[in-house]
Amino acid sequence: MKILILNGPNLNLLGTREPEIYGTVSMEKHLELLQKAYPKHDISYYQSNVEGEIINRLQEDNFEALIINPGAFTHYSYAIADCLKNISQPKIEVHISNIYKREEFRQKSVTAVNADGIISGFGMNGYSLAIASLIIQ
Amino acid sequence: MKILILNGPNLNLLGTREPEIYGTVSMEKHLELLQKAYPKHDISYYQSNVEGEIINRLQEDNFEALIINPGAFTHYSYAIADCLKNISQPKIEVHISNIYKREEFRQKSVTAVNADGIISGFGMNGYSLAIASLIIQ
Amino acid sequence: MKILILNGPNLNLLGTREPEIYGTVSMEKHLELLQKAYPKHDISYYQSNVEGEIINRLQEDNFEALIINPGAFTHYSYAIADCLKNISQPKIEVHISNIYKREEFRQKSVTAVNADGIISGFGMNGYSLAIASLIIQ
Amino acid sequence: MKILILNGPNLNLLGTREPEIYGTVSMEKHLELLQKAYPKHDISYYQSNVEGEIINRLQEDNFEALIINPGAFTHYSYAIADCLKNISQPKIEVHISNIYKREEFRQKSVTAVNADGIISGFGMNGYSLAIASLIIQ
Amino acid sequence: MKILILNGPNLNLLGTREPEIYGTVSMEKHLELLQKAYPKHDISYYQSNVEGEIINRLQEDNFEALIINPGAFTHYSYAIADCLKNISQPKIEVHISNIYKREEFRQKSVTAVNADGIISGFGMNGYSLAIASLIIQ
Amino acid sequence: MKILILNGPNLNLLGTREPEIYGTVSMEKHLELLQKAYPKHDISYYQSNVEGEIINRLQEDNFEALIINPGAFTHYSYAIADCLKNISQPKIEVHISNIYKREEFRQKSVTAVNADGIISGFGMNGYSLAIASLIIQ
Amino acid sequence: MKILILNGPNLNLLGTREPEIYGTVSMEKHLELLQKAYPKHDISYYQSNVEGEIINRLQEDNFEALIINPGAFTHYSYAIADCLKNISQPKIEVHISNIYKREEFRQKSVTAVNADGIISGFGMNGYSLAIASLIIQ
Amino acid sequence: MKILILNGPNLNLLGTREPEIYGTVSMEKHLELLQKAYPKHDISYYQSNVEGEIINRLQEDNFEALIINPGAFTHYSYAIADCLKNISQPKIEVHISNIYKREEFRQKSVTAVNADGIISGFGMNGYSLAIASLIIQ
Amino acid sequence: MKILILNGPNLNLLGTREPEIYGTVSMEKHLELLQKAYPKHDISYYQSNVEGEIINRLQEDNFEALIINPGAFTHYSYAIADCLKNISQPKIEVHISNIYKREEFRQKSVTAVNADGIISGFGMNGYSLAIASLIIQ
Amino acid sequence: MKILILNGPNLNLLGTREPEIYGTVSMEKHLELLQKAYPKHDISYYQSNVEGEIINRLQEDNFEALIINPGAFTHYSYAIADCLKNISQPKIEVHISNIYKREEFRQKSVTAVNADGIISGFGMNGYSLAIASLIIQ
Amino acid sequence: MKILILNGPNLNLLGTREPEIYGTVSMEKHLELLQKAYPKHDISYYQSNVEGEIINRLQEDNFEALIINPGAFTHYSYAIADCLKNISQPKIEVHISNIYKREEFRQKSVTAVNADGIISGFGMNGYSLAIASLIIQ
Amino acid sequence: MKILILNGPNLNLLGTREPEIYGTVSMEKHLELLQKAYPKHDISYYQSNVEGEIINRLQEDNFEALIINPGAFTHYSYAIADCLKNISQPKIEVHISNIYKREEFRQKSVTAVNADGIISGFGMNGYSLAIASLIIQ
Repeated sequence: MKILILNGPNLNLLGTREPEIYGTVSMEKHLELLQKAYPKHDISYYQSNVEGEIINRLQEDNFEALIINPGAFTHYSYAIADCLKNISQPKIEVHISNIYKREEFRQKSVTAVNADGIISGFGMNGYSLAIASLIIQ
Repeated sequence: MKILILNGPNLNLLGTREPEIYGTVSMEKHLELLQKAYPKHDISYYQSNVEGEIINRLQEDNFEALIINPGAFTHYSYAIADCLKNISQPKIEVHISNIYKREEFRQKSVTAVNADGIISGFGMNGYSLAIASLIIQ
Repeated sequence: MKILILNGPNLNLLGTREPEIYGTVSMEKHLELLQKAYPKHDISYYQSNVEGEIINRLQEDNFEALIINPGAFTHYSYAIADCLKNISQPKIEVHISNIYKREEFRQKSVTAVNADGIISGFGMNGYSLAIASLIIQ
Repeated sequence: MKILILNGPNLNLLGTREPEIYGTVSMEKHLELLQKAYPKHDISYYQSNVEGEIINRLQEDNFEALIINPGAFTHYSYAIADCLKNISQPKIEVHISNIYKREEFRQKSVTAVNADGIISGFGMNGYSLAIASLIIQ
Repeated sequence: MKILILNGPNLNLLGTREPEIYGTVSMEKHLELLQKAYPKHDISYYQSNVEGEIINRLQEDNFEALIINPGAFTHYSYAIADCLKNISQPKIEVHISNIYKREEFRQKSVTAVNADGIISGFGMNGYSLAIASLIIQ
Repeated sequence: MKILILNGPNLNLLGTREPEIYGTVSMEKHLELLQKAYPKHDISYYQSNVEGEIINRLQEDNFEALIINPGAFTHYSYAIADCLKNISQPKIEVHISNIYKREEFRQKSVTAVNADGIISGFGMNGYSLAIASLIIQ
Repeated sequence: MKILILNGPNLNLLGTREPEIYGTVSMEKHLELLQKAYPKHDISYYQSNVEGEIINRLQEDNFEALIINPGAFTHYSYAIADCLKNISQPKIEVHISNIYKREEFRQKSVTAVNADGIISGFGMNGYSLAIASLIIQ
Repeated sequence: MKILILNGPNLNLLGTREPEIYGTVSMEKHLELLQKAYPKHDISYYQSNVEGEIINRLQEDNFEALIINPGAFTHYSYAIADCLKNISQPKIEVHISNIYKREEFRQKSVTAVNADGIISGFGMNGYSLAIASLIIQ
Repeated sequence: MKILILNGPNLNLLGTREPEIYGTVSMEKHLELLQKAYPKHDISYYQSNVEGEIINRLQEDNFEALIINPGAFTHYSYAIADCLKNISQPKIEVHISNIYKREEFRQKSVTAVNADGIISGFGMNGYSLAIASLIIQ
Repeated sequence: MKILILNGPNLNLLGTREPEIYGTVSMEKHLELLQKAYPKHDISYYQSNVEGEIINRLQEDNFEALIINPGAFTHYSYAIADCLKNISQPKIEVHISNIYKREEFRQKSVTAVNADGIISGFGMNGYSLAIASLIIQ
Repeated sequence: MKILILNGPNLNLLGTREPEIYGTVSMEKHLELLQKAYPKHDISYYQSNVEGEIINRLQEDNFEALIINPGAFTHYSYAIADCLKNISQPKIEVHISNIYKREEFRQKSVTAVNADGIISGFGMNGYSLAIASLIIQ
Repeated sequence: MKILILNGPNLNLLGTREPEIYGTVSMEKHLELLQKAYPKHDISYYQSNVEGEIINRLQEDNFEALIINPGAFTHYSYAIADCLKNISQPKIEVHISNIYKREEFRQKSVTAVNADGIISGFGMNGYSLAIASLIIQ
């Protein structure tokens, strides 16, 4: 299965950014682990701090399943939400932290209505669970 | 690992209740599958329509990890939320449907703040992913 | 027709509880009147102060029509609302007092969306009207 | 008993307007049925699309009981609400559809506080139940 | 000075309607008193229960000053508010009762922004004070 | 095409009312221009300050297309909204001013949900654009 | 009649403060006019910028009628509101400007519920009208 | 005096549950102290995690005074609130912690309106103060 | 123990102000009773209608424990709230009436977050209970 | 006239994206039609998924009139709103669907306050009407 | 330049009050530093815990520029806000802490609308920056 | 000190954009003045209309202090807010105008919670004051 993992703003800093919330493992390191764990699957990765570039990447439409962590865009980007609505492949929204334990604005997701499933609060393992969910289905 | 799966009100009807939302597999059937898939783990199951009985069961405290689907209690039972807060074992909140696609009242979870992780929208597979998340951790 | 009349919390005290609002006739007395007035119909009665027991009773599903006065649960029990949604028989929600004349919280019904019809403000006669409505239909 | 049935705006179109909600029976047809069913009672009927004409009719005060379906005025006409407050005869508010199943604005009634009882969701039978309620009392 | 006193819905019942709030003097009686008290002024009176007729009357524009008690229309008639905005003569809004002592909906006036002054809570004397205010100015 | 242009309250004063917002051209003058510009179409015009008369006119149902400027009724007349819902002909809502530049209450339209298209802010040309839209379709 | 006129904060600056709103007449000047106009009445005046001093003055209770313009305290001083509630003499709340034409916070009066009548928007004449209202009653 | 102390959900865990908030003394231990301190009074104790069982216990009505700590039910159980309303004996609501220092949802009490007095923030001593208050009265 | 009892605005009128709510005992009388009941303690009393004088008094900081009834300041004086925050001695907030039974604005306390405990609804006995609470601790 | 048509995010997919809402005609196809229909006018087109690129394009300021469909940015991009405010040329906001018939968040436009006119709900014809409006003016 | 620095309630305790928020330097100490740093300017200082005394001081109007830290009055004193509005000299609002990092009520300033500039979060240096801003201008 | 000044969308137009609010000095001109005024400091400047490019620039992390004016992004960019949170250098938020004097949406800053200090309303001098604040600290 061709899986795109797409991370939103500031998630390029995973491993160094607020480690008490996001942990100390970098995304690059974690991707290696994922690719080892799921050798039969083609896992590609994209990150951008630019909302429109995320939409551009999604519109390329060259994946069979999507795992997206929109970062802060989760809470206000109706543009990404609209873009997700137009994607018919399986699509999972992942949040590293449990968004219910954080600031109030983080508890509203404008994108989740256009995802199939949501995984929140499992740290970097959330990506792994998302892949697992795609394989089971 | 001794895992308790706890389901809230009306979830005893899984398989027959609103099948377009909750699917056609009964919980009993699904538990068999889970036990086969995770033979090394001790998976027990409890369901009640009574809020206080759920609290009583949680207070027995004879499990190493908790997977809870509080059903409608998710949206107003501060009593269950308080009870969860007092549990120090790993605890996962599961919702069968993607609560963001449903009525507005279902988009507020008063219990999630006291769970470690939330899995929503994966149908019956949500329970399986929850177990997977406990094993990885 | 097999009709279940189901009353929620504190409605076992009808006749003595706040008589200026709920009148001085007990439910037992009123049931006798109903059974006399509708001798061809099988009218059973259930009351509980426990939200989950009301759900348990509803799930027994041994009635052809339901008349429910959820009492205070009307205003917050999404669990009973979910349970009602799953019932395909005719179902009438009854309130003894006119809920629009009372406290603000009583003017929101979370259960009514899953009833067929609502009768409010007719005192104990509300139950009689509900039976009448079932027979006409 | 001299009963006035008063219908608000657009209810002159009953039978053709949104039949999936309001049914296919015209009010005229239904009145005939009511008059046959209650031959001892004097049932008169008035409908207007003009809020103030409804108030004018109510102020004529030549009825012993009132059955009013204020239609859309239910949701904002404080003028009709004030007028109802001034009426001491028995007064029943009827809604053909279950207003709790419809748009949010239809779930607020500014007139109901000044009615004695409310009947909602029984289709055209709501008028019949309202008459029945007047006779029992 | 040519003064129009204009009363809104249900104010034709002054003297009999809710006398504990509105007193026992009819508007006709009170007008006589006003005309005696202000013999040099031409005081005309109009009342209607129909919002649009009030607008029609205002648009006749044959007065030098306006005293308006919009009754319940005070709280929602943006149409009358728009009409008032277009009137350049002095215009006083009068309320018989102190609207701050009554229901919450009565504490919002959508018309007052387009009046020059507001007099509230002085019973029938409010009309007299309004005339006095016009003469002083 | 038989087109009805229907204007709500205070719009009979176009040309003199608040000219800085609504311009200095009267509706009669503008209608002449429209009839010249669209000689093949039958353009009739109706205006009323009375909400219910607007509904009465709409229920006559003798037009192939509707252009409605409900004026202040836009913001609270659920009765007109209900009436529009029942009309299956093409129906355009026109506002002379840009309602987003004005008071907050003018930014909520309860009627627009039952129109096909909305044109706002083009002055008297809004009517012309509405006709153009009907011809293109 | 012994009348106390009591003005709240910043109203000692009347005549110089924001003259486009409050006019150019000082309170002292206006008091002279009032005393001339009502020679038989004993009109005393008190102004303070200190909320508690206003309460102290009111508690002296040496007046037969009260005219109070609480200034900005109108909008938040529950302490003055409580004090007014305890006064059984006639009490009139006066506002120089029409508070409905001003900032949103000025449209909420926490004191008016404990006044008998409210006069707003008549400039300095508001005080005169208040005295007139006391004499009529 | 026959006093019933009634504790709501999770309060059976006092002494071990969140000790930084609720302290380290168990309720059983504290009851012993209370009984020693007030030897002339008959103090009985009931705790349940089930909302309806609390109502059942209250309806037994075999006490001369009530001290109730509804726990999390304080914030949403209109059913317990209704039950309390029906109790004419003295009734005190106790909270161990100062609810104003905690989560926002804990600052709304739906039951307090039906209690005589509220004691909050005194730890286990709150029960003792409640008894003291009953004896003084 | 050196205890300061501090009362806010209008509480100097206890015994005469709204006796149906606040009772008929004056504070002076009640202080005598308190001093007799707690002869070993040094109970001083201060009352002011001026918010800032209350802060001045609190800043004198010459007490070992504080019992404060901020009166109407409870509901909006962030200045007193800030002052209380800076006091490290035990501090009890007392309300004579049960604030949950009164107007909505009285149900929000901005000061309580900075008190240790709150006692509400016990009439003048509230002061006595507050002293008792200080002695137990 | 030099007209810029500017489309926001996901509008590059017109013709394939949610065709039940947005139709099956691509923007390129539609532009051809527009250029044929208005041969004397210079119609240029720009689309971007990147909010800032839209601002960059607008700041180039090389057009005599603007037709903008900000897509999802309509609902939250204060940055584009600010940019529009700075443009003195005629500017029309177009929405393909009737935004009043869709999700609640789509009914708030933060950009419309800085447009001259708004056209919503006419499908692709909205662009044509916008051009027509520019030519008439 | 004659500069008045005016501090509101509890700011006389700077240096000892909540030092983790407000630092350990007293205002007196800081004023010495300011006077040394700006020897050519006449810096006077006033502090009061009494809202009305602050207004009295401002009305003396004997300064060429104002630096005001209204403390808690920032959040509710419309009386001080009105007073500031009337001051035509340059006026700077200073907050020692960053009010956006604190309680929600501190994030609303009712006075800032009537200041020229706001400086927040720079500790005691905020006063120095305010003086600097006055000199540059 | 190496200082980065970072301006958000539309701030490249300073000097020409809405000069009545933002003045007539261009940013380039103002930077020259700043560099002359602070010759010992290394002041670099970056502006972008693209939210993500601002984040990219901030993540370069090659500055010892940050002065940021996020423009319209202040009010909704949680992505920039998150990015600022991750920056440990001193960081000042500057607004040219007093945001409290403008539209309501401009009074909410989602970024300020992650800045150290805020300076608002000083025109272009705000940048200068921000540098001054960095040097003092």
